Amino acid sequence: MVPAELPEPVAGPGQVVFKLRAASLNFRDLLMVEGRYNPRQPLPLIPLSDGVGEVTAIGAGVSRVKVGDKIAGNFSQKWISGEPARAKLSASLGGPIDGMLAESRVLDQEGVVHVPEHLTDEEAATLPCAGLTAWNALINTGRLKPGEVVLLQGTGGVSIFALQFAKAAGARVIITSSSDEKLERTKALGADEVINYKTTAEWDKRAKELTAGVGADHIIEVGGAGTFNKSLRAIRIGGRISVIGNLSGNVTEVNLISILMQNICVQGMLVGNRDGFEAMNRAIALHRIRPVIDRVFSFDEAPEAFKYMSSGSHFGKICIRF
Amino acid sequence: MVPAELPEPVAGPGQVVFKLRAASLNFRDLLMVEGRYNPRQPLPLIPLSDGVGEVTAIGAGVSRVKVGDKIAGNFSQKWISGEPARAKLSASLGGPIDGMLAESRVLDQEGVVHVPEHLTDEEAATLPCAGLTAWNALINTGRLKPGEVVLLQGTGGVSIFALQFAKAAGARVIITSSSDEKLERTKALGADEVINYKTTAEWDKRAKELTAGVGADHIIEVGGAGTFNKSLRAIRIGGRISVIGNLSGNVTEVNLISILMQNICVQGMLVGNRDGFEAMNRAIALHRIRPVIDRVFSFDEAPEAFKYMSSGSHFGKICIRF
Amino acid sequence: MVPAELPEPVAGPGQVVFKLRAASLNFRDLLMVEGRYNPRQPLPLIPLSDGVGEVTAIGAGVSRVKVGDKIAGNFSQKWISGEPARAKLSASLGGPIDGMLAESRVLDQEGVVHVPEHLTDEEAATLPCAGLTAWNALINTGRLKPGEVVLLQGTGGVSIFALQFAKAAGARVIITSSSDEKLERTKALGADEVINYKTTAEWDKRAKELTAGVGADHIIEVGGAGTFNKSLRAIRIGGRISVIGNLSGNVTEVNLISILMQNICVQGMLVGNRDGFEAMNRAIALHRIRPVIDRVFSFDEAPEAFKYMSSGSHFGKICIRF
Amino acid sequence: MVPAELPEPVAGPGQVVFKLRAASLNFRDLLMVEGRYNPRQPLPLIPLSDGVGEVTAIGAGVSRVKVGDKIAGNFSQKWISGEPARAKLSASLGGPIDGMLAESRVLDQEGVVHVPEHLTDEEAATLPCAGLTAWNALINTGRLKPGEVVLLQGTGGVSIFALQFAKAAGARVIITSSSDEKLERTKALGADEVINYKTTAEWDKRAKELTAGVGADHIIEVGGAGTFNKSLRAIRIGGRISVIGNLSGNVTEVNLISILMQNICVQGMLVGNRDGFEAMNRAIALHRIRPVIDRVFSFDEAPEAFKYMSSGSHFGKICIRF
Repeated sequence: MVPAELPEPVAGPGQVVFKLRAASLNFRDLLMVEGRYNPRQPLPLIPLSDGVGEVTAIGAGVSRVKVGDKIAGNFSQKWISGEPARAKLSASLGGPIDGMLAESRVLDQEGVVHVPEHLTDEEAATLPCAGLTAWNALINTGRLKPGEVVLLQGTGGVSIFALQFAKAAGARVIITSSSDEKLERTKALGADEVINYKTTAEWDKRAKELTAGVGADHIIEVGGAGTFNKSLRAIRIGGRISVIGNLSGNVTEVNLISILMQNICVQGMLVGNRDGFEAMNRAIALHRIRPVIDRVFSFDEAPEAFKYMSSGSHFGKICIRF
Repeated sequence: MVPAELPEPVAGPGQVVFKLRAASLNFRDLLMVEGRYNPRQPLPLIPLSDGVGEVTAIGAGVSRVKVGDKIAGNFSQKWISGEPARAKLSASLGGPIDGMLAESRVLDQEGVVHVPEHLTDEEAATLPCAGLTAWNALINTGRLKPGEVVLLQGTGGVSIFALQFAKAAGARVIITSSSDEKLERTKALGADEVINYKTTAEWDKRAKELTAGVGADHIIEVGGAGTFNKSLRAIRIGGRISVIGNLSGNVTEVNLISILMQNICVQGMLVGNRDGFEAMNRAIALHRIRPVIDRVFSFDEAPEAFKYMSSGSHFGKICIRF
Repeated sequence: MVPAELPEPVAGPGQVVFKLRAASLNFRDLLMVEGRYNPRQPLPLIPLSDGVGEVTAIGAGVSRVKVGDKIAGNFSQKWISGEPARAKLSASLGGPIDGMLAESRVLDQEGVVHVPEHLTDEEAATLPCAGLTAWNALINTGRLKPGEVVLLQGTGGVSIFALQFAKAAGARVIITSSSDEKLERTKALGADEVINYKTTAEWDKRAKELTAGVGADHIIEVGGAGTFNKSLRAIRIGGRISVIGNLSGNVTEVNLISILMQNICVQGMLVGNRDGFEAMNRAIALHRIRPVIDRVFSFDEAPEAFKYMSSGSHFGKICIRF
Repeated sequence: MVPAELPEPVAGPGQVVFKLRAASLNFRDLLMVEGRYNPRQPLPLIPLSDGVGEVTAIGAGVSRVKVGDKIAGNFSQKWISGEPARAKLSASLGGPIDGMLAESRVLDQEGVVHVPEHLTDEEAATLPCAGLTAWNALINTGRLKPGEVVLLQGTGGVSIFALQFAKAAGARVIITSSSDEKLERTKALGADEVINYKTTAEWDKRAKELTAGVGADHIIEVGGAGTFNKSLRAIRIGGRISVIGNLSGNVTEVNLISILMQNICVQGMLVGNRDGFEAMNRAIALHRIRPVIDRVFSFDEAPEAFKYMSSGSHFGKICIRF
């Protein structure tokens, strides 16, 4: 990762130029800058999918935003609405197209959204990837109903957003962590039950107990290889496991019989479309939800921010202030 | 498997007694009689989930059928409608509750359906497990649309039903087999494209080619461990893999990244509810669909029928005539 | 309405006898006892669809409840799960089959549910008709998402339940009434915005203003002829109007162009199935929701209770204690 | 309607210029040129939403089409995917933005689709409005299943497309007309049952009889005021009425009780999004569906074409060849 002097972007027809104010980091960005992201992205590349900025210029025909507006870019620039498809997923910020670790950026007006007014720039900058992924999994695709049970793994960005959205949607939340202190913090955010998976290694059994033997309605699977089979045991018949990330590795042995005999839906979950981003923002505004930020770095400290992320000790999001 | 003399069943309130005319075999039944089914079922047990009979007596309050009607039992006797749940799945015919390899049986009126009139007894007897599983996967849950691409594996009972229902729903069908002769027969049933997976081992790549690089919209996964990872490569972004059976084993290494990055839905698929059975029968009647029967055995030849099934050379269903 | 001495009910196979503790009134019951309900129901008939009681006896094979349990009957005794159909709707409590204004009743175990433990008998007795209708409209069928806008009409039983469920689901609620005092009470229950339709006759325009010109996502239409056309103007493009009741008459002139050009869904809404009742109870328990009771009458005051209902001045539900 | 000399359009970034080959007329176009369309559209305006042309130039960044491709414009130029919303519906061809009765037109690449190769230019030109409306109603929104019953009114463009798509989706079709000769032609196109509403004025009762008293699963309501209440009597409990047009007027008395007590969904139906257009085209190609054209006029005969449409005697679509 090296700094570069780039020309000031210009707003073509339908385009929006904005000056970055804050950005946030995702695990995907870490893989990207370490060259471990698969598939490999073309270089050079401005990293970071998530950022918020102020509009400084608009091109001909732009009607969705005006100069001075606070906006964020949608992760998948061409996924505006509806179901995903290859073409709609071909233009993700931070790879393959340039991301937000820049002074100014230009995007198509269809690919940007206004951010909720009650949020700081750093808070707003956490929404595009982790926030929308959690929303897409639980609300847009998962259609969570009040009273349903959501099981969350750990206290990373997606899990904490999922906790906040699940509570806003009236669900009951069970969350795991290896740290009692972090679990206490999730309780303050509304978690109904917590499981320390270091002291309760069989968290799947504990989740079943907490649900009268039924299992969770919805699990946000962020662990991957290390947790997936436990998730298959913690879910209810007919339940849904949204596969978000693979923090503990990708390849695992799966007993397909577990999926079959329990009528489970294992749903791969990409970030989400722009319409979903706007729907999420409306809910965030109504509920005055504040994204949880672990630590804020300055623009020049970006390398330290990535290093901190790789330590894995954060609770919520890591941000960069411009 | 030993024959037993059982008392003639009596129709209690809301119950229906019927004399069996024909039955059909499923792979599950084979596992059951060989004691390989997991979980183990209580013994003694009358095997076979699938059968058709003629009503000989009805209990007080029965309004859904009358004496003389031709009926079949729904696989899950307590799954009448809606989503599955543990209690609704607790009473499957042929284990844990008695099945159809009997002279007469008694069932609750809510658990039986009329069979399409244009079918022979043997044809009608093939519907409850394999037929309804295919219907539930493609139509009820999968909501197949005209023009969508369905990829089917092999020529067993579920796959052949899936072929027939997919064509009735206006989809395009690609089907695999190791036998050119069987593939020819699938063409006669409407298959649009065929792949011999012995001569084209990379059938996943071939399926992608046949869909202009997009992949299939829906795959009915019957192979299990031996085919699942190929299915993950043959499906389109946002597509659906219905996990039905595990003919080639249960446990396989899965790269969760494939599920995640393509937004795939892997959906475990139990047989289906009674309302679905009736909806399926309506479609079968309208389209004059005739289930494909490979071979019919007599009641006394039941052991031979199971042996024949274990040979795996059948095309469509194996039946027993009473 | 005359009192009658009936034999003590007996629990046949699969049946449950329970002693009534409390009941509640719905507008439908009023029409029923006044002989104005269409279609006319066979007489004699025990009125009231809604009641809660304690199980005193169970028949053979009953596993869903045990003696001593507190239960309510599902409005549609045969609509257990899934979509409605004529046969499933053929057995509603309080007409055509006997209702709850009785000392004891017997029902099939599939038609009863446990009530939330934190509720009084009277509170629990309000759930079967008004509660489940609101749940079915907003949550089960309407799939409300956090941040969506729900517009409610008046402060009758269904509207107040809808307010409570909409808030539990994270929606924003706009509610109308002719009484500022009642509107204040809805605010205490969580209403985000209120409209006095006496002082603001054009409440449809006001609702549009409150939603930045977009309109409500979901309207629960209880007024019927007097309000439907205003609802068509207050709803957003692609929004949903659940038609629940017709307090101000049934027949109205409708401009179909409004439905067409705004892609509106006008959805008739029957009460709901038993699975939905259980899902609702789970949410009520989690959120410690307490149904709003206007007034409680004794068993002997039942005629007064009906008279009070016809006055239309209540806020929430009218109950009877046994 | 007067001819005008317009400058040759130029392809800006992301834009496509195409030379028109054929167009088709819809009832909406007739209202438009007669100045009866509500809301009134700004003038001058090039009429006709439906046309097909050959790409003659593409702007910078265009990847969806290339010069020489045969394309059609999507009715709602900004409704690419997902649910409708005001902004997405703000740019319909033929009003408020210019339509297809022109030598050449320029559109954004996101708003055009390739047409099925087996179609003539005239046939392809019938798809954008009437075709996609029928598809959106039955397939995309209606999720038609094999064996379901679709009731269609008359033999105009939408109804004939609906007939073709319903048959492709495996449904059973009942269709009405005042002409036995037209009904014969619908039979040749696959209609299962026909009703002459001149000789059988109570076609709603007849439809109920033909469905064993149950009613149709889905009705495409094109008549409006003159037919809507009959549709309410011909639909099944829980069925869906898609409100498409209002040929016989807009305002009618509706008994809301009919909607409520039968749990009916009355769904206003706008044309459809671009993704749906592409999905429809895939089905049309697979099934080799050929749109039904009543008569083709030359470009100069456009006024006669409109006059012919207003006579209402057509079967299928009226086209213009360039």
